[in-house]
Amino acid sequence: WTRTFLDGLLGFGFDRPLYLVNPRGGEIRGIKVYADIDDVPSPVEYVVSTVPARAAVDLVRKCARKGTRVIHFCTAGFGETGIPELAELEQQLLAAARETGIRLLGPNCMGVYCPDSRFSFDPIFPREAGPVGYLSQSGGNVSQLVAPSMHRGIRFSKVFSYGNALDINECDLLEYLAEDPATEIIAMYVEGVKDGPRFRRALERATARKPVVALKGGVTAGGARAASGHTGSLAGIETTWESLCKQTGAMNVATLDEMADALVALRFMRLPAGNRTLVVGGGGGASVILTDQFEKNGLSVPRLPADVVERIREFSSDAGNILSNPVDYSQNMFDPEQPGTQSKMDRMVEIASAHSGIDLMVIFMSFTAPPSLIREKMANVGGLMIQAVQDSKKPSAAIIEPSVLPEIQSFVFPLVQQMVAANVPVFYSAVSAARAINALLAHERMKRSRGIA
Amino acid sequence: WTRTFLDGLLGFGFDRPLYLVNPRGGEIRGIKVYADIDDVPSPVEYVVSTVPARAAVDLVRKCARKGTRVIHFCTAGFGETGIPELAELEQQLLAAARETGIRLLGPNCMGVYCPDSRFSFDPIFPREAGPVGYLSQSGGNVSQLVAPSMHRGIRFSKVFSYGNALDINECDLLEYLAEDPATEIIAMYVEGVKDGPRFRRALERATARKPVVALKGGVTAGGARAASGHTGSLAGIETTWESLCKQTGAMNVATLDEMADALVALRFMRLPAGNRTLVVGGGGGASVILTDQFEKNGLSVPRLPADVVERIREFSSDAGNILSNPVDYSQNMFDPEQPGTQSKMDRMVEIASAHSGIDLMVIFMSFTAPPSLIREKMANVGGLMIQAVQDSKKPSAAIIEPSVLPEIQSFVFPLVQQMVAANVPVFYSAVSAARAINALLAHERMKRSRGIA
Repeated sequence: WTRTFLDGLLGFGFDRPLYLVNPRGGEIRGIKVYADIDDVPSPVEYVVSTVPARAAVDLVRKCARKGTRVIHFCTAGFGETGIPELAELEQQLLAAARETGIRLLGPNCMGVYCPDSRFSFDPIFPREAGPVGYLSQSGGNVSQLVAPSMHRGIRFSKVFSYGNALDINECDLLEYLAEDPATEIIAMYVEGVKDGPRFRRALERATARKPVVALKGGVTAGGARAASGHTGSLAGIETTWESLCKQTGAMNVATLDEMADALVALRFMRLPAGNRTLVVGGGGGASVILTDQFEKNGLSVPRLPADVVERIREFSSDAGNILSNPVDYSQNMFDPEQPGTQSKMDRMVEIASAHSGIDLMVIFMSFTAPPSLIREKMANVGGLMIQAVQDSKKPSAAIIEPSVLPEIQSFVFPLVQQMVAANVPVFYSAVSAARAINALLAHERMKRSRGIA
Repeated sequence: WTRTFLDGLLGFGFDRPLYLVNPRGGEIRGIKVYADIDDVPSPVEYVVSTVPARAAVDLVRKCARKGTRVIHFCTAGFGETGIPELAELEQQLLAAARETGIRLLGPNCMGVYCPDSRFSFDPIFPREAGPVGYLSQSGGNVSQLVAPSMHRGIRFSKVFSYGNALDINECDLLEYLAEDPATEIIAMYVEGVKDGPRFRRALERATARKPVVALKGGVTAGGARAASGHTGSLAGIETTWESLCKQTGAMNVATLDEMADALVALRFMRLPAGNRTLVVGGGGGASVILTDQFEKNGLSVPRLPADVVERIREFSSDAGNILSNPVDYSQNMFDPEQPGTQSKMDRMVEIASAHSGIDLMVIFMSFTAPPSLIREKMANVGGLMIQAVQDSKKPSAAIIEPSVLPEIQSFVFPLVQQMVAANVPVFYSAVSAARAINALLAHERMKRSRGIA
């Protein structure tokens, strides 16, 4: 039933009329507010409820008389409080739903974000849809993934915040997204799993069809208590979760930043044949630290052979550059281009990335100069980096460190947007890029070993 | 000699006249440019040189006739290029220096930043001095530490970028900062160590006197090659460095962000008696992930006992909050304050932080709402967080996640500045805060076990 039901639910957003209900009545922005749902002059298929917890059971019974099929309860204050009477109230809510045949989303959740159905619960979410489906037990963790990743080019098909999972649960949603043709990549944030064997089967089937990026909340003792207080979940221990991900081939991440990184890699990074990385960047000391971080996090930064270095040296400055990989090209990066000729930066990238010992290229840039100098000297840095990525002979990504300084970030942010518009995978730190690309490679090896296309 | 010499060098900044020298002559901003150093009408004690590498030896001989005591060579293009003739040129430079008695800083470095001497090489560095001394083999890594950490309240006594360390080297500088009365905390970024036993002795003596935060560039094979191309350093392997830090009690960090975090903890965090952390924040899902990150990185987040939770529950909302630690107080955080009465947030913090099972408090906040809503609803969030930290009965810190969105960051940045001005240790992520506080605790245990005050 899941698929039909959830497809139906998402259909409600399209063109149905919207009714507001509040005991005080009146109007909101010119729309009539009904004092009671009984007063609404037509059936009400889908109800979004913020009534207090003690009024929830009554609402279900009232809705049954209005032909309601689904209630999404934002309402919190049930079992997750740890108070026995409120846990009992939650069970009464479930009983009322079962009795009336109404399905519940939540309680204690933010509900649905589905751009194509015009469902959303946050005005900043994009209206444009994309290939990522996301199920999140936390509503806040929907905003904390969608908002930052939208600026890195990630768009969503269907997003469900499902809270206490009293009725519709993580298995229903995972099974649904696994089948959903609009969803090519699945992301999930899960605190509790109610039915372990069913969840394992759902995850196995999902990973056989599409990449699944999975974050488990509550993998430590403190985190598990937090999860219990948050959504009333019985969270498991980390090793169990890690094994489950390993066995099913889900990509296990520890934070929402890592999740966004994994989505960017899956969505925008062409698949490298291996982990041998050409590092191109600005700054000697920065190149050293970045290379250490890459090699500690699964990527190797091999030496370019002497003949390749010699070819680059012919047109590059020795002083202040490192040419053997990492290639610190900071002294030549902003050399003025001659009209009609290729820039030094481009020639260098073409030569170095063509080397057979290189599988991928990462170009990086950070901004600490005074804002005026950045705007003047680096006006074209976006074009330069995009050109380098496009002329690279191997799959490529960029690292652009955000600045905490608003004046600098107001330069960096449009730069990132420019690169994202050119479909460049953009990461915010060396560790993020290395982890995500390494995870992408590991995911590909897993697929190959299981014969998944 | 080191101390006298470097004190002398730093003295040159104060009140000596500045002469510009360039073969083209003329004027820069109204200051006469001499065509040759021989033309300068007085002795020249301290020379900052950007002549090409091939002109460096000649410059030393010329300077000897002008009574020069120190030359800081920005000039790069010596041994670090890996080209034998240029390595030979570097040795000739050293020979000329020894012969003339002139001391060299560099080559291939950015030199000195010392606010009290009015020496600087970057216009954005603060003019105000502070207790952190920093030696960095990389000039870029001076900017990459000073610029971000200045916005978190860190100020510097004396900073040396020393490049290829041809003459003045890491041991000289470390010994100097260990003795320097203006330096209370030492930070160092080192790529190569020329004299292992001397470096170990210098580090032992430094750590016995003040905290030393140490970052080694080139701890992987790729990183070591990068270091060799950057400053001609022979970098060692990671395990050696880790052992050295462990044995001497230096705080070993892997990135400059971690270094800034360690400096913030050392400078602004009152010392907690243990690692049992009260987590106060906004958002349920965020609290769960943050708690997992804390417990994975050395801090524990213990349950508050039932009687403490009951006292908090008396005036707090159950719905949408978690009260047992982590305390997700997002539903009550912005409750309007009654004039003359304590806010709910403050009462909660006072009660929870007073519990004997709690050693420290961390309060966190991130901003994903639309900028207009943030400005309106969270106008006083800075005051609220500062008040919470000040009313906490235990050492406390704040985590404020920067936003990549310039409109939001232009709200977040002044908020951070407001908290920094109130001497609150501010971190940018859960992992950063947990690592830094855990390192602070480990450092204290080390000191106690060695009987260091």
